[in-house]
Amino acid sequence: MKAILVVGSVAFDTVETPFGRAEKVLGGSASFFAVAASFFAPVNLVGVVGRDFGEKELAAFRGRPIDLEGLERMDGATFHWQGKYSYDLNSRDTVCTDLNVFEFFKPKIPARYRASEYVFLGNIDPVLQREVLEQVERPRLVACDTMNFWISGKPEEVRKTLARVDVLLVNDAETRELSGEWNLVKAARAIRKMGPSTLVVKKGEHGVVMFTEGGSFSAPAYPLEEVFDPTGAGDTFAGGFLGYLASAARLDDEALRRAVIMGSALASFCVEAFSLDRLLRLTRPEIEERFRLFKRLTNFEPLD
Amino acid sequence: MKAILVVGSVAFDTVETPFGRAEKVLGGSASFFAVAASFFAPVNLVGVVGRDFGEKELAAFRGRPIDLEGLERMDGATFHWQGKYSYDLNSRDTVCTDLNVFEFFKPKIPARYRASEYVFLGNIDPVLQREVLEQVERPRLVACDTMNFWISGKPEEVRKTLARVDVLLVNDAETRELSGEWNLVKAARAIRKMGPSTLVVKKGEHGVVMFTEGGSFSAPAYPLEEVFDPTGAGDTFAGGFLGYLASAARLDDEALRRAVIMGSALASFCVEAFSLDRLLRLTRPEIEERFRLFKRLTNFEPLD
Repeated sequence: MKAILVVGSVAFDTVETPFGRAEKVLGGSASFFAVAASFFAPVNLVGVVGRDFGEKELAAFRGRPIDLEGLERMDGATFHWQGKYSYDLNSRDTVCTDLNVFEFFKPKIPARYRASEYVFLGNIDPVLQREVLEQVERPRLVACDTMNFWISGKPEEVRKTLARVDVLLVNDAETRELSGEWNLVKAARAIRKMGPSTLVVKKGEHGVVMFTEGGSFSAPAYPLEEVFDPTGAGDTFAGGFLGYLASAARLDDEALRRAVIMGSALASFCVEAFSLDRLLRLTRPEIEERFRLFKRLTNFEPLD
Repeated sequence: MKAILVVGSVAFDTVETPFGRAEKVLGGSASFFAVAASFFAPVNLVGVVGRDFGEKELAAFRGRPIDLEGLERMDGATFHWQGKYSYDLNSRDTVCTDLNVFEFFKPKIPARYRASEYVFLGNIDPVLQREVLEQVERPRLVACDTMNFWISGKPEEVRKTLARVDVLLVNDAETRELSGEWNLVKAARAIRKMGPSTLVVKKGEHGVVMFTEGGSFSAPAYPLEEVFDPTGAGDTFAGGFLGYLASAARLDDEALRRAVIMGSALASFCVEAFSLDRLLRLTRPEIEERFRLFKRLTNFEPLD
């Protein structure tokens, strides 16, 4: 089954940027990931929401190949994150994090999901990430995200999870913290020894560097004139990346490179509006056109 | 005449990095530029040195197509810059700047240099940059550098110079300061209205973005495992960039893109050692090999 299993947060975000404010809009790593990946392959979503998560929010997932059997509903309120971005959008402060029902999240993988060939472990407790892996049959590819909170708080658990992961997607600060190396080339070598054969380092406006068996691959971010809200860009990247790989059904270096570009293309749309707004009105031709623009943005002729 | 005229500083640098210290070694924008460009085209150098600048320093330029008739010698000491880098090499403090003879620098372009088809105005007073342009015949391309000291100190003079320039090469902070725009796409539009049809934004470890009539082009920095000393990387980039354009004798978008990669390749060697040490033992096959590695680093296949 070419489906992608995603396990992560489904949340309400309250976001303040220099350009405006959005109040309790749909967010969470699994939401961004699922919608982005669903352009390419069927998605099986595992997460938890509260009683305040209704048909209005679910509408984002309807009409797409996103299976919601694994979206558990618990008594209580949905995870709520509130953040405020700096004037240049390059840093953000978390104003508050109300975990609510997410605090009690224990991923339960429905029987129908267990044969998913591709797995994305969103940024949750590394112990839970491994519990997911114990509930699935031999996936073809396991990708995961993590964050400084887990890297510094549960370093041993992060290591144990990484030993079972094929692709790690993290930002540059996390790469440095996890490896203890400032230089990204050295950091990548150290992290690839921990388990993941592929490391994808997300550098925000500076693009992405991927380190694989075949060497390294650098992709710029798309030069946008208006970046409205960066929330969810990393998970959207991961969704485009894994979605493309699932649809291509190839894991060679060439496919991985295209997957990075596809992830970058999806992320470049995500930041154009609050929440999933831009992704929800995105079309396949728009995605393909932006992929072509990435080619135009980076291409040069070899020497004669 | 396919020669490149460069006007800028020839200096002694004292540099401290986390990896060591170099005392009064050859530096200056014109030195780095000239050696880098000389791999591709004849260079006519205009600068000034003091009596302490001897045969040992001149040796760097000998045996290369670098004409030194324009290297004036004045009574006094050579310009001396001393700087110290942070542990991550991402910022540096100037410990001292002894302008010495450079304070009295008035560029005098030798008659033989006046037909130079390519001109690079290093980071000197914008008034002097224009005085250079008044002494040359119709160059095919004028490129220039500037810095925050001039952008904030002599904004009107910088504007007057830019009106006569084809290519501006500056870093991202200078791009933002000059345009008053944080977003680089908007900043580029504003700067291109000031005169230069091409803007090359140097972002250090994050590579280069070029804005031209034909759109934008992004190139990563080469992912080096050891960056030893970043001093001179920007001028070395400019030397490789203009050198390639002069040797190709083309100024179309394709040539400009290759020139960015050639500049990036040269700069990636520059930072491997103190001063011009790595550039001075660099070979043409090494340059071509690194150009090919840039292709491998950035290439991906279009969608089927």
